Amino acid sequence: MMGRLAVVGLGPGGDATRTAEVVARLAAATDLVGYGPYLDQVGPAQYGQTRHDSANRREVDRAQFALDLAADGRDVVVVSSGDPGVFAMATVIVEQLHHDAAGGRWKGVEVSVLPGVTAASAAAARVGAPLGHDFCVISLSDVLKPWSVVEQRLDAAAGADFVLALYNPQSRHRRWQLARALEVVSRHRAPGTPVVLARNVGREGEQVEIVRLAELDPDRVDMRTALIIGSSRTTAFTDAAGQPWVFTPRDYPDELSAETSASESTS
Amino acid sequence: MMGRLAVVGLGPGGDATRTAEVVARLAAATDLVGYGPYLDQVGPAQYGQTRHDSANRREVDRAQFALDLAADGRDVVVVSSGDPGVFAMATVIVEQLHHDAAGGRWKGVEVSVLPGVTAASAAAARVGAPLGHDFCVISLSDVLKPWSVVEQRLDAAAGADFVLALYNPQSRHRRWQLARALEVVSRHRAPGTPVVLARNVGREGEQVEIVRLAELDPDRVDMRTALIIGSSRTTAFTDAAGQPWVFTPRDYPDELSAETSASESTS
Repeated sequence: MMGRLAVVGLGPGGDATRTAEVVARLAAATDLVGYGPYLDQVGPAQYGQTRHDSANRREVDRAQFALDLAADGRDVVVVSSGDPGVFAMATVIVEQLHHDAAGGRWKGVEVSVLPGVTAASAAAARVGAPLGHDFCVISLSDVLKPWSVVEQRLDAAAGADFVLALYNPQSRHRRWQLARALEVVSRHRAPGTPVVLARNVGREGEQVEIVRLAELDPDRVDMRTALIIGSSRTTAFTDAAGQPWVFTPRDYPDELSAETSASESTS
Repeated sequence: MMGRLAVVGLGPGGDATRTAEVVARLAAATDLVGYGPYLDQVGPAQYGQTRHDSANRREVDRAQFALDLAADGRDVVVVSSGDPGVFAMATVIVEQLHHDAAGGRWKGVEVSVLPGVTAASAAAARVGAPLGHDFCVISLSDVLKPWSVVEQRLDAAAGADFVLALYNPQSRHRRWQLARALEVVSRHRAPGTPVVLARNVGREGEQVEIVRLAELDPDRVDMRTALIIGSSRTTAFTDAAGQPWVFTPRDYPDELSAETSASESTS
């Protein structure tokens, strides 16, 4: 008998930001597959399933292993932090289905993706609404893409005045990338632009800070930090009770538009 | 006595994709404020609160009304569909706090934002993982920003090969914008680029379609449709069981990079 596989997003942290369908699927599973710290977020043996900690396994191997378990009749859940569709396991699983599209290795396995609250949404919520206007989500990791692509995208996005949500900003092995990224962004942004640093949002040890772009110290950022860099319109302030806020207004005045589009006269 | 106010994200549809903290806050509220169809998503009088349908109210008025209720001691929830921080009510509420930062109209009201699964994540999950790599989220509405800004951003984002998630693509009053946006994107994308059209995801009448960019008919898109346009790497295929999938791989080969960044030789 064929089993099924769901790639689920745990959201940023604990139970509070998990969706009902993800909780139900976790409860029904016979096997959980994922990186140890994410499995720990589900709670130690909360539902009594077999846990497959994939710490030392490549993501492709983890995906094939999980699909094989499902083909063997198990009810498998692959856990991702945040949203599984954003720089996470959903694309790795679907890629495997693509490689096997003609074959039958996993034919009949019911595969689904259950979305979660992504880190950028969670980080934004903590300080107000910095993602209230157009924004880009960029991974600074150059493990799977050349750094030149990261730079081109940062330059294009900052140049067009998007708010920037940066994932995977640093790691033990990637030490210069964030500083270089900030240089690129600073070509297009004032030194006082608000930046949100959100570490471990919704989890133990949560730290959320609002700093100015020019004052951002890359050494205080690690893999567990989501970073939001404002557009020219993003505003930071402290309310009457002393609480800090950041928001990007939804309106965008005409005078900020650098050039007039040719389409305007024809529409 | 001062009350409190939470801006909550209902996620894309019904209870299944709502987070636990949002459900708890809805249950505790004395007053729900929001656009009628979103209030209806909570369930008709599910928790017995007073409902304030803001259909005929400007968003700024809605925000002030909700804050005033909280200042009056009520436990207020402002409901947004998807994530309240993405083109939704969170930024309107925080903007009001900003206008009143020096004053005391709402001083002491505890305001918080509870994130939800945004439409792009929900739409992506239905077809696999089209947002598996860098992406931009752009509202096509030119009610609050000039159309020239929308075009510049589309051009920059498509030129840098981001996946594009388009919100508010059409309305009864905005009929030409999507067609014009597709023209801009088509300067940078092949006609066969996969596009995901997701209407009413997670709600009654859900329709999810995968089409090619050149075949996209703007007349089949409305305000309730989220649109995801692939990058040059986004792949659509049908698996052995006949199910359609779309994914954007996380890797990005060197040869696709249009130019070599100056930083590469210095790093």
